Amino acid sequence: MRKLLVIGIGAGNPDHMTVQAIAGLNRADVLFIPDKGTDKTDLANLRRGICDRFVTNPASRRVEFDVPVRAEPTSSYRSTVDDWHEAIAAIYEGLIRDEISGGGCGAFLIWGDPSLYDSALRILERVRSRGNVAFDLEVIPGITAVQALAASHKTALNRIGDPVLITTGRRLTEEGMPDNAGSAVVMLDGKCAFNTLADRDLFIQWGAYLGTPDEIIISGRLGDVGAEIERRRDEARRKKGWIMDTYLLRKPE
Amino acid sequence: MRKLLVIGIGAGNPDHMTVQAIAGLNRADVLFIPDKGTDKTDLANLRRGICDRFVTNPASRRVEFDVPVRAEPTSSYRSTVDDWHEAIAAIYEGLIRDEISGGGCGAFLIWGDPSLYDSALRILERVRSRGNVAFDLEVIPGITAVQALAASHKTALNRIGDPVLITTGRRLTEEGMPDNAGSAVVMLDGKCAFNTLADRDLFIQWGAYLGTPDEIIISGRLGDVGAEIERRRDEARRKKGWIMDTYLLRKPE
Repeated sequence: MRKLLVIGIGAGNPDHMTVQAIAGLNRADVLFIPDKGTDKTDLANLRRGICDRFVTNPASRRVEFDVPVRAEPTSSYRSTVDDWHEAIAAIYEGLIRDEISGGGCGAFLIWGDPSLYDSALRILERVRSRGNVAFDLEVIPGITAVQALAASHKTALNRIGDPVLITTGRRLTEEGMPDNAGSAVVMLDGKCAFNTLADRDLFIQWGAYLGTPDEIIISGRLGDVGAEIERRRDEARRKKGWIMDTYLLRKPE
Repeated sequence: MRKLLVIGIGAGNPDHMTVQAIAGLNRADVLFIPDKGTDKTDLANLRRGICDRFVTNPASRRVEFDVPVRAEPTSSYRSTVDDWHEAIAAIYEGLIRDEISGGGCGAFLIWGDPSLYDSALRILERVRSRGNVAFDLEVIPGITAVQALAASHKTALNRIGDPVLITTGRRLTEEGMPDNAGSAVVMLDGKCAFNTLADRDLFIQWGAYLGTPDEIIISGRLGDVGAEIERRRDEARRKKGWIMDTYLLRKPE
């Protein structure tokens, strides 16, 4: 049986690597490295740096592969994602079949944690149900950008005894701040959804390139810092060609 | 200036320790070890094991301290917590003042991640505002039980593009499954709140002692496994004298 590891490698700081993740990297004969396009070469370099620093298994190979670009969402966000996942599943299936020998071990390296807004586990479930290649799956958790954000702001995510909603920029725009949680963590927001909110008294703690030397963090009342965050975000994205950011919104206590 | 590190040490598996957390442990001259009572000696041993394995700094001291027991919540959950935090703040203040020399470094070791349902950061904020001792604070994130749960079940927390509510057993009992998220992660549930829910078609993924050799995981339709989880939970808690568990509830897609 082929073994497949899905390893969370942290949010950008190589020191987020856990002992378990380092051991996982070194159990694998082959490391699968997605190349998500040329404008994110910093990220590719960060991942390469993690492999260079932590992989000591001399038998380890790296296999880079192209990830198809997702079509722009049209009528149905779900069906766009579905087509995209099917295309990636075919690629994963080929990698597992062709690059891992029987009894061998391969690993996918995932930014953050495989359980949060990452599609690898869902796509591998698809590969399994296609029935063309069998594998044992093991998941190794990693530090997420959400945790790096909280650490940099030295804050808890939740208010005392109170829920936290982890959501997306899209859903925040559509639904506003949740009624059932004093705090919302927003991910996958390319459009500064926080600036669509009517309540400017919310407290925002924002961060980009978290855990890296380029980290930027800004916090304050949304009415005071919302425009500044948008400006700093645009500026940083233009300068580097890409941005990864996340933020915590909290109702005043 | 005194330096204070608040270090997430993972959910129970010593291999959850990050490179950053190990470095943090070794930067500290003094490690503060809470003794949360005699019935959780397994946890105390686990923490001691982490220190024994990862601390290589010969100058490092360990200071154990007692944490006052929280009063049973009465009229106001908030005010009970408030009194409790004030008592702990006084203890923290004493530890920082008496055990860390000027220019020295101390560390608190936190199960999981300091940002999620942990009071250390909030209590240290209280110590700071009491104004009797000054310190620089640095937070190091750690793997949470939520991530260990998802890894053991090989599952994503979120459905595609959909929010996740992180909540407590108490709030789940009061409010039921959220309307604004397809998934709910429930922590701090001593009373199997999932069995108070009317919708027995929810899918539950439950885990106890996650990441340790005693790990138990159960998943299935709530109507099918809800009673079994409660039985296994009671049995395990009786046998070991304590339990730490968490679970993910998901609406059928």
